[in-house]
Amino acid sequence: MAERVRNVQVLLKNHVNGVPTESDFTIVTSSIQLQIPDDCRGGVLLKNLYLSCDPYMRIRMYGKQEPESYFEPFTPGSPIMGLGVSRVVLSSHPDFKKGDLVWGSTGWEEYTLSKSPETLYRILDTDVPLSYYTGILGMPGATAYFGFHDICSPKRGETVFISAASGAVGQLVGQFAKLLGCYVVGSAGTQEKVDLLKNKFSFDDAFNYKEEHDLNAALKRYFPDGIDIYFENVGGKMLDAVLLNMKRGGRISACGMISQYNRFEELEGVKNLFLFVSKEIRLEGFLVTTYFPQLQKFTDAVLPLIKEGKLAYVEDFSDGLETAPAALIGLFSGRNVGKQVVIVARE
Amino acid sequence: MAERVRNVQVLLKNHVNGVPTESDFTIVTSSIQLQIPDDCRGGVLLKNLYLSCDPYMRIRMYGKQEPESYFEPFTPGSPIMGLGVSRVVLSSHPDFKKGDLVWGSTGWEEYTLSKSPETLYRILDTDVPLSYYTGILGMPGATAYFGFHDICSPKRGETVFISAASGAVGQLVGQFAKLLGCYVVGSAGTQEKVDLLKNKFSFDDAFNYKEEHDLNAALKRYFPDGIDIYFENVGGKMLDAVLLNMKRGGRISACGMISQYNRFEELEGVKNLFLFVSKEIRLEGFLVTTYFPQLQKFTDAVLPLIKEGKLAYVEDFSDGLETAPAALIGLFSGRNVGKQVVIVARE
Repeated sequence: MAERVRNVQVLLKNHVNGVPTESDFTIVTSSIQLQIPDDCRGGVLLKNLYLSCDPYMRIRMYGKQEPESYFEPFTPGSPIMGLGVSRVVLSSHPDFKKGDLVWGSTGWEEYTLSKSPETLYRILDTDVPLSYYTGILGMPGATAYFGFHDICSPKRGETVFISAASGAVGQLVGQFAKLLGCYVVGSAGTQEKVDLLKNKFSFDDAFNYKEEHDLNAALKRYFPDGIDIYFENVGGKMLDAVLLNMKRGGRISACGMISQYNRFEELEGVKNLFLFVSKEIRLEGFLVTTYFPQLQKFTDAVLPLIKEGKLAYVEDFSDGLETAPAALIGLFSGRNVGKQVVIVARE
Repeated sequence: MAERVRNVQVLLKNHVNGVPTESDFTIVTSSIQLQIPDDCRGGVLLKNLYLSCDPYMRIRMYGKQEPESYFEPFTPGSPIMGLGVSRVVLSSHPDFKKGDLVWGSTGWEEYTLSKSPETLYRILDTDVPLSYYTGILGMPGATAYFGFHDICSPKRGETVFISAASGAVGQLVGQFAKLLGCYVVGSAGTQEKVDLLKNKFSFDDAFNYKEEHDLNAALKRYFPDGIDIYFENVGGKMLDAVLLNMKRGGRISACGMISQYNRFEELEGVKNLFLFVSKEIRLEGFLVTTYFPQLQKFTDAVLPLIKEGKLAYVEDFSDGLETAPAALIGLFSGRNVGKQVVIVARE
């Protein structure tokens, strides 16, 4: 008879329009048998260690609706699904064995029975903090890496603007751009984050967008000759202001538009789109999963940079599954400083 | 003493916000000496034959303002400047001689002293109507050719949607796409134009956008599996609806957004931009002048297609300079059927 253990879970109570609150989630405690049922052959049982709070998860909290069309809605009454770092407790899959560390798709609970281990990636290098595989060495890192290098066609000396720049993706894009010899400015929502950008992440400059009543004027101050590359994490008003400041032939890489995620019922209109024509701007959106077949290339590039101390990285830890709802919804008010991680278990 | 001739001119009276009317123009009759003044060495004197009415010209009727940043404002009290077909009357430039036919930058008047003949292109093939060099063999043709082939990365069997499809650019994009084996649908603003698209330009289908109260639903009817390529001439509401119907990995080539040109003071917001991310859409704006160094490639490709009868082309002639203001502003109410040309002189 398999051992039975406690399994605290974070469930989505209901689909959510507007701003999510903690009352949209429930924490329940049940138990789980440490076994892989017969109808789950090929599956693995995971013990979750770190969970990743990512802006795209907000989109899955809506019921099915346009304009989302790619992100499957969460199922109310079921655990939130996301990315995390886990240890394999039991495996019936040839690619994984008990004790392996993995990152990838998992549930917001202590133990997850993964029926699709092809969404898990083995962690081979443990000389870095394991939590890094929710960020700099995981999905957000790959987003920054491919979204900047593949989509922005960056060149030494070009000017780069990054919104939500102290977040998991932004802080890395800025550092990749600096390593390439670009001039880099970021925006963030507090003085503390602005200081981080300038002092920790080596941005050339940074500003607090909440203190600028005129984003266009702010961008003109930092980019008197215009912006070659915009790494778009925000959308809405920021995109409108950026368009006014793009250089001819500029490129915009869009991995997300967090300013819109709580207002899908009433999206903000962006007005200055004619500038795409008159300035010959290219905008390309992408989903990082498209690049997952090339993850090795990313890991091979970034791991050495971390070990040589050439990339700084800031995480914001929230301790315990019961803190996870607040951590997730905190992304949308900018509560987090750096990559938001939930600690489920310490080993 | 040089001959003095009458020179009817179309002047812009004032910069224009909102919808332009004929009262924003003046027709004046003066005279001009058929000579190249000493301070214009290198210039050529042109007798204008055909003038081109193009949507971008509306932008030059504004005073200097954002979001335009590329198109120089017209000078009130001076002749409208645009593109046309002209005969060289006198030349002090080594590349041009008396009697040459050219297309390129000229004024809305009977005679124009061109101080920058590098903006003129010699017409070498006169087996086609000369007016074609204001359209299918001129700037709009190059816009269609490069904007479709270079920016849309089209492949046989892909689905293509074209707005303002019966206009100078749209009718050609659709035919280029058909020649490549794409499925092509266009929108236009009258039944007559819809019929043209289907019967003359061989589009697979077409619809009258003014009769659709729900553009999203209309597009879903014609593209049940989505749109691979959108050739954007319109912007605003149409772009919003198209985004809802783009396929993952779709491409949008934007040469203009005519729906916005009379409302630069109050641009329409486009809301569905997050779909650029979730559908991995690429939007690229362009100015055809960027491709002018490759004009020969375009002419070499298109001239044979015209002569072999593989490209249809419809022009809308307006006879006489005094009809030019009405012809130009008619573009914005869709009065023209096909490429709008003003006849200045018959030879």
